[in-house]
This record gives sequence, C-alpha cells and structure tokens, in this order.
Amino acid sequence: MTSVDLNADMGESFGPWVMGQDAALLEVITSANIACGFHASDPDVMAATMKLAVDNGTGIGAHPGFPDLQGFGRRRMQLSPASLRNLTAYQLGAAQAMAGMAGGKVRHLKLHGALANMCAEDKAMALAAYEGALSVDPEIIVMVLAATQQQAAVEELGCRWAGEIFADRAYNDDATLVDRSLPGAVIHDAELAAARMVRMVQAGAILTESGKHIPAAVDTICLHGDGKTALQIARAVRAALEGAGVTLEVFPGRTGGV
Amino acid sequence: MTSVDLNADMGESFGPWVMGQDAALLEVITSANIACGFHASDPDVMAATMKLAVDNGTGIGAHPGFPDLQGFGRRRMQLSPASLRNLTAYQLGAAQAMAGMAGGKVRHLKLHGALANMCAEDKAMALAAYEGALSVDPEIIVMVLAATQQQAAVEELGCRWAGEIFADRAYNDDATLVDRSLPGAVIHDAELAAARMVRMVQAGAILTESGKHIPAAVDTICLHGDGKTALQIARAVRAALEGAGVTLEVFPGRTGGV
Amino acid sequence: MTSVDLNADMGESFGPWVMGQDAALLEVITSANIACGFHASDPDVMAATMKLAVDNGTGIGAHPGFPDLQGFGRRRMQLSPASLRNLTAYQLGAAQAMAGMAGGKVRHLKLHGALANMCAEDKAMALAAYEGALSVDPEIIVMVLAATQQQAAVEELGCRWAGEIFADRAYNDDATLVDRSLPGAVIHDAELAAARMVRMVQAGAILTESGKHIPAAVDTICLHGDGKTALQIARAVRAALEGAGVTLEVFPGRTGGV
Amino acid sequence: MTSVDLNADMGESFGPWVMGQDAALLEVITSANIACGFHASDPDVMAATMKLAVDNGTGIGAHPGFPDLQGFGRRRMQLSPASLRNLTAYQLGAAQAMAGMAGGKVRHLKLHGALANMCAEDKAMALAAYEGALSVDPEIIVMVLAATQQQAAVEELGCRWAGEIFADRAYNDDATLVDRSLPGAVIHDAELAAARMVRMVQAGAILTESGKHIPAAVDTICLHGDGKTALQIARAVRAALEGAGVTLEVFPGRTGGV
Repeated sequence: MTSVDLNADMGESFGPWVMGQDAALLEVITSANIACGFHASDPDVMAATMKLAVDNGTGIGAHPGFPDLQGFGRRRMQLSPASLRNLTAYQLGAAQAMAGMAGGKVRHLKLHGALANMCAEDKAMALAAYEGALSVDPEIIVMVLAATQQQAAVEELGCRWAGEIFADRAYNDDATLVDRSLPGAVIHDAELAAARMVRMVQAGAILTESGKHIPAAVDTICLHGDGKTALQIARAVRAALEGAGVTLEVFPGRTGGV
Repeated sequence: MTSVDLNADMGESFGPWVMGQDAALLEVITSANIACGFHASDPDVMAATMKLAVDNGTGIGAHPGFPDLQGFGRRRMQLSPASLRNLTAYQLGAAQAMAGMAGGKVRHLKLHGALANMCAEDKAMALAAYEGALSVDPEIIVMVLAATQQQAAVEELGCRWAGEIFADRAYNDDATLVDRSLPGAVIHDAELAAARMVRMVQAGAILTESGKHIPAAVDTICLHGDGKTALQIARAVRAALEGAGVTLEVFPGRTGGV
Repeated sequence: MTSVDLNADMGESFGPWVMGQDAALLEVITSANIACGFHASDPDVMAATMKLAVDNGTGIGAHPGFPDLQGFGRRRMQLSPASLRNLTAYQLGAAQAMAGMAGGKVRHLKLHGALANMCAEDKAMALAAYEGALSVDPEIIVMVLAATQQQAAVEELGCRWAGEIFADRAYNDDATLVDRSLPGAVIHDAELAAARMVRMVQAGAILTESGKHIPAAVDTICLHGDGKTALQIARAVRAALEGAGVTLEVFPGRTGGV
Repeated sequence: MTSVDLNADMGESFGPWVMGQDAALLEVITSANIACGFHASDPDVMAATMKLAVDNGTGIGAHPGFPDLQGFGRRRMQLSPASLRNLTAYQLGAAQAMAGMAGGKVRHLKLHGALANMCAEDKAMALAAYEGALSVDPEIIVMVLAATQQQAAVEELGCRWAGEIFADRAYNDDATLVDRSLPGAVIHDAELAAARMVRMVQAGAILTESGKHIPAAVDTICLHGDGKTALQIARAVRAALEGAGVTLEVFPGRTGGV
C-alpha cells in the first residue's frame, strides 16, 4: 500500500515572540522539523515543542539553520565546510537533548532556509552539513529536497534519507522549483495542491508544469503552517491523500539512489 | 592509594577571539570543563577543543553558563527554574554532540560563572540546573563546589557527583570562600598553593584559615589557565601531588553524602 | 488647562517576529517608547517604527533595555554602573540615528523591563543609566516612574524629566504598585481604568487603594498595546480624558522636585 | 606640501576577549576605524576605545560591519538594500553617541570586512550602505577603497569622501588587489612596504606590480595592528613618510571624481 509522510517546520517562536500554529499543524503532519536555536527558537521553546511533538506521536526532526536570528536563517551566509559541519552537529546535539528530556528521540534532520537552499545547489556544502549530523548519529534519516544536490549528497554518503516534495510549488522539467516570480509558481488553491499531491504520491514522481513525469523519492510532503491558507492547504492535502487510500505515516528512510 | 583529579575550564575562545592556554593546561589537568556556546565558545571552538581533549585523554565535561557572551556568563541573571533546566540540557546536548564528533564522551558537568555562584548559594537553582542535565544523561557526574548548596542539591538528587576545592582560594570556617576583598583570600604563591592542596587531598578535608578541618569530598582541584601565575600554580600543584604519591586521575564519581 | 501625555512601548518586533499593534496604538498615544535592539527590535524594525511615529506626529522616545532578546529584557541582570551608562548611551545613539533617518528626533528616554524595575528601586543604577543618556543628549527628557528612585535620580541630576503613572495598576500608600499577586492589583476594566486616570490627572496626584492622595508628577500615562483588553483600556482612557476636557499632548518636560 | 592620513581598525575586543594593540597603534595612526558592536566590540569596549582615540587626538571613524560576531563580520551575508542602509545608520548612531560621551565626534565612516569587500565589488550595495550613513550625517566623510565600486558610489552620491590604499598589498593593473594566493600579494617586509607608500603618496597614484601608474585618491593608508609584523610595517611606513617630508594628518575629505 502506498504511504507518505507529511512534514512541517515548527518550534519557530523565540523568547516572547510567537510564530506559527504548531498545535493545529500537529494534527495534520506526521513529522516535525524543530528549530534548534540558531535561526529561531531557544531552549525553552525547544523544550515545549519537543513535548508537544512527543505528546502527538509526531516524528521528530532537528532543523538546523544559519546563526542569524534577525534574518530567520533566510539570508545566505558564506561559511567554511568545517563551520557547516560543526554548526549542524551542535544543533543536532542540542535537539537530541531537548527531545530526550521530553521523552522523545530525534529521528531525522532537515536543513533550514538559506542553508537548505544553498545545499540544494551545492553538493559540497550539503556533504559538509550532513557529515556533521552523521558524525553525531550515523542512523539519522536525512530529509532532502528530492532531485537536488542535497539528494546527490546523501546518495554519495550512503546514509539513510527521505525525499521531499512541496505541496504548494510548481516544478520545472529539470525538477527545480519554478521561480517564485513567475505566475503559477506558488499554488494557493488548496484543492489543486491536494490533487497534485495525490497524483505525485501515487506516481512516485514529480509531475512538472509541462506534464513531464520525473521518478523521484516521494517520501514526504512539505507543508506550511503560517497563515490561514497554508493550514487549509495542509488539511486539504491530508484529506485528499486519506481519501485516495494513501497511508500517512513517518517515512522509514531509504538508502541508495532512486 | 589516594587519588585526585585536576580540572580546569577550557575552550573559552569565541570566533576570532582567543582565550586561555588550553594546550599547556591539558598537560597538567585530568578533566576539562568545556564551554558550550552560551557564555563563550561556538561550534568551531568546541569542535577543536573536544578534539584536543580527546587527543590528550582528558576527561570531558560540559560547562554550561548563562546566555551572555559579552558578560562571559559572569553577570548574575534571574531565570526561571524551567529556563535553568532547559539551558543546561541544551548546552549539555550540544557538548555531547561535539564530543562524539571528536570521538569522545561527556562524562561530567560543571556550571560556569554566575550560574555556578548562584547555584552554590541557592539549592533550588542548583536542582533545576542539574535536573536538566540528568534528564539528558542520568549517568553524568555532576561536579560541585564542595560543601555548598550545589552539593546539597546532588545529595538530594541521588545522582553521581564529584566534589571540588580551589587551589588558590582560602576558606572560611563554614567552608565558604574568604571574600576576595580580604587579604590572603586569593593565593598567588605557587608553592604555598601546592602544599595546601597536598594537605587537603591527604586529609580528605577542607582546611580553613583558622586551621579548622572540615571533612569534604576532595575529588577534584580547580585550576586556572589564564595568566602566567595560574599556569605556574597549576604545574606546582600537580608536581607536589605527584611528589606526595597522590595518583592524578579522573574522578570516578560518588553518590550519597560525605 | 490640564494636559497629559499618553505613552506606550512600540517597535518591539524582531526579525520575522511581529509583536504588538503599533498602528492601532499610534492613534491613541502621544508619545512612543521605541525599542533599541537590545531587548527587542533590530535596525529594520526601528527604521519602520520611527517612520510610523514621525508620520503620526508622535513624540519619539528611546526605550533601552538589557541585552537579552530571549528574555525580552525582563530578566534581571547585574551590570556594573559603567556598563549601564554605556548600554544606555549606545542604544540612545542608535535611536537618534534611526529617528533622524525617518525625519524625526528622539525627545525622551524611558528604560525598559527589568532595567526599569531595578532602577525604580536603586537610585545608583538609575543615575548610571540616566548619566549615559544625558552625556549623549543633555536636553533629553527622562521619563520616570513617578515617586520611585527613578524620580529621585532625575531630581538629583537636575535634568529635564516627566513623571509617569500606570493606567492599569493599583497603588499602595507609599506610591509603589500593589503586588501583581494580590487581587485588584491589575485593572482589567476599561471604564474603571479610564475613570481613575481622569481623577489622578485632575488631582495631579496618585490615588491609592486606601484613598490616599499623593501629589505626583502626572505628566504621562503608561498604556499597553498587547492584547485586546489593553487596546480597549488605552482607547477608554483617551476618550475619558478628552471627555473631561483634558488636553492630550506630549509632555513639555519639567525640572526640579514635585 | 604633500600630506596623507594613516588609518587602522581598532576597538575590536568583545566582552572579556581582547584583540589588537590599540594603544601602540594610536601612536602611529591619524584616523581610527572603531568597531560598532555588530562584528566586534560592545558598548563598554566602544566607550573605552573612543576615550583612547579622543585622548590621542585621533580622527574618529565609525566602522560598521555585518551582524556576525562569531564570524567577525568576515563571512559574506546577503542582505537587502534596506537592511544595509539601516544597519549602517544604526551603527553610525551608536558610534556617534559613544564618541560624544568621550568628548569626540565621528568624522568618517569605513565599512568592515565582508561588507566592505562586497561593496567594493557592487555599487548598489555601497550606495545602500552609504545612504544609510549620510541620512544620519550628511557631512560624514566616507572612506573608500580607491578605484573600486565604493569610490564609484561616493562619486555618484556627491558626498565627502577619502580614498584609501593598502600598505601591505600589491596591486594589479586594473587597481584591484593581487589575489592573496599569488606570490608577492601580501608584503611582509616593512622597509619595502614603507618605500612603496612613499612613492604612491608622492605620485598620488597606485603603482601596480607591472609598474603601471594609476592616478588615485591617495588620502589615507590602511595599516594593521594584529601581530608583530603589522605594527613594524605601520611604524616603518610612518617613519618613511615623515622622512620624505610628507605631513601625516587626518584627511580633509574631498568631493567629486579623481
């Protein structure tokens, strides 16, 4: 039977500042990518978020980012490979501790923001970041943007991984995302997004704007929780997948190529 | 045969700023208290320091502090018990990851600066901080300032612990440190410091200025590495202990009262 | 004719995290206390907030706090007098620049959070912080909590100042605030708060719970903008004062004792 | 009579961490570029550094950088033009306050590290950063790397500026610096550096490796203070210029093209 995971970022509050709708999202997703204090969150937010994830039986992921709270880790920074390795290891370690404190365990890792984007383009960067994580936990499942340099990196490393597609983004024929400045790049219609996800999950492939069918590791779908529309899309995707008989569960992790 | 551990803080550089003489200290000490990024250090400094400690076979400790780089964790801050618990857990987790990356393991925890001072006075604070650490690793050995509320806390928690005395500080009859503003409070003479340490280790007691003998958990001696004098004292203490037939080795950890 | 100023904190967002309802508050208040980047805000938030204040013709104040974003400047920190002086000067300078960029000018200064609370209790701390501000701008109007050590400090300094009372807090007979844990300490009823403010402004005095009448510098009323109730109280206070014929305008500043 | 300014970065300590040899450098230079708390320094370090500069009669410059203490502002970050404008304004304002507190005045501005390098390549970035500074102080003298996009920006803005050359770097024929990886790119010989500076100052031109003579705004020479060699070069440059009859004084600032 076909199954897929639904993931979303969470625990992105910081000090007195609240972000996101974590409680609502947790009713929809099966895996949570939890911020680790560099681009968002702090030890108190992490403790509360880990508890929430454990209480909901959600798969827990560390979600490391650049050390840039003001920029929310969305501003590109040029770091050495050693620094990438070390900051990923550090944040994963912190996440493991906070998960353990809540009675849970970090089972996956997903990079955040500009760090993720740069690693999707640059395999050397992805290798550095993932090596940092694997040196801390060789069994961790690395969540990658399917068909990017992130995937090339995990294939080269031979580690456990899971491929991710976006619920609300259109794809080019080379499996890259359609540029946000182009019409149709971002999907705002919940039913449309949901229908596309059902097709891609059932096909085990990325379906591009032109109709091309690119076999891909469709292990998890990236959902968002910011804003009303995002939550509507998240719920619609889940409902449509359930309606189509797809099992929603945490990804088991895979190794090797697609 | 009598044995004792020698500990010192290290890995207190940050970004481009170098602090301390870690390499020289590592030749003297048996346990290192390694900063975790809140009051000093960063993932790169931690990675390098952990490697240095592993290469020297030094016992590794996490050394969490207040989130205050500018103040080096020496400025008192009023945090809730939950925040104390969480920041200790977070920093310990980060230290575990960085130690693991270097092929080592965190075996003890020692609080830093104002956090340590406040916990030496306030058992509730010490309990909160130590509970954070123990929820991450129930087997960790908590290094406490002997005969303070830190020790009261570990006795209450029933966890593994080690008692610490200072090489360069004079003691009052209630086992507190002589106030720094008083003459003789800080010992600058390396031979004097060394001779005192031999006596206290052999006696298994704190010897006060007035000559009082307070049985204490003399498991480890706190040395410093900043400045020429500190390193001289550190070396003199080590040499004197070796000369007196005391074995220098990492503390095994104890449980229960003294 | 009687006049009074209405002030509120604003510009307390940080990076991607939004806080407060600044636009709505600006329709009510006459003076804004604008965060300076240490406990909240960043250069981008400051630029936007200064522009909003200038566009609304609101009196601009610098609102420095402790360097503690996670704690929102609400956690007490022990800093040296020199550090208090320097951090106040630094934040005021930054605020002056951002105000100037928006075509405005910083005319007052109000301390934030734990820094304000500690300075309300400790004249030496207040002196240090205010000296920092006055060394940058000797003409700045220091907003103080009426009848506290903050006021004692400005009287001693001989600088321009303005006294502040709270719209939503009950007072003890020594002009301190009733402890938050006691019933009636915080006023949640908008009409009640409004009526009290009219009486205090007209009396030029703090009116305590027991009915005592303490002559005070009632130059400005502190309003809040967080939550629906706070905005309701703010609007009710403004409406009641206008209904009672009180002019709402920025305080001119005073010197000397009450 | 020919004159030139000698500038160096200073005030780059942070909290407990000391960097540089500011006191020794101040005997050599005529203008100081003082860090503003984003890539280095804090309010306490700034206060002390400003005082030192005022006591030495040194021209004071604000030296803003990226918000990246760990990376010392040397890691490239992608910021929006608005953010560049705001962070420059903010840091300049803070510097003005700290200078004023010490009885001095900020007369110039020089960008730091990666921010400077990116602005030397990208005029739009330079324009954004300089506009931020000029909106705070239209009379400020912007120190630019001669013959780079920094210079193009100040010429376009029509503001006061001063051109800078390096004492210890070799130049290509297009006035860019010889890549550090090439032999001879960095000059370590104090006498050689000094002789080159005398020639360039007297020529009012950059002299390239191939012997080309590029007329340039040689208003100030950038010296370094880190390490023994740097200080030797600084002193040798000063001595050689004095020996050649060049007056060493703060640049007056210029407007328009070279």
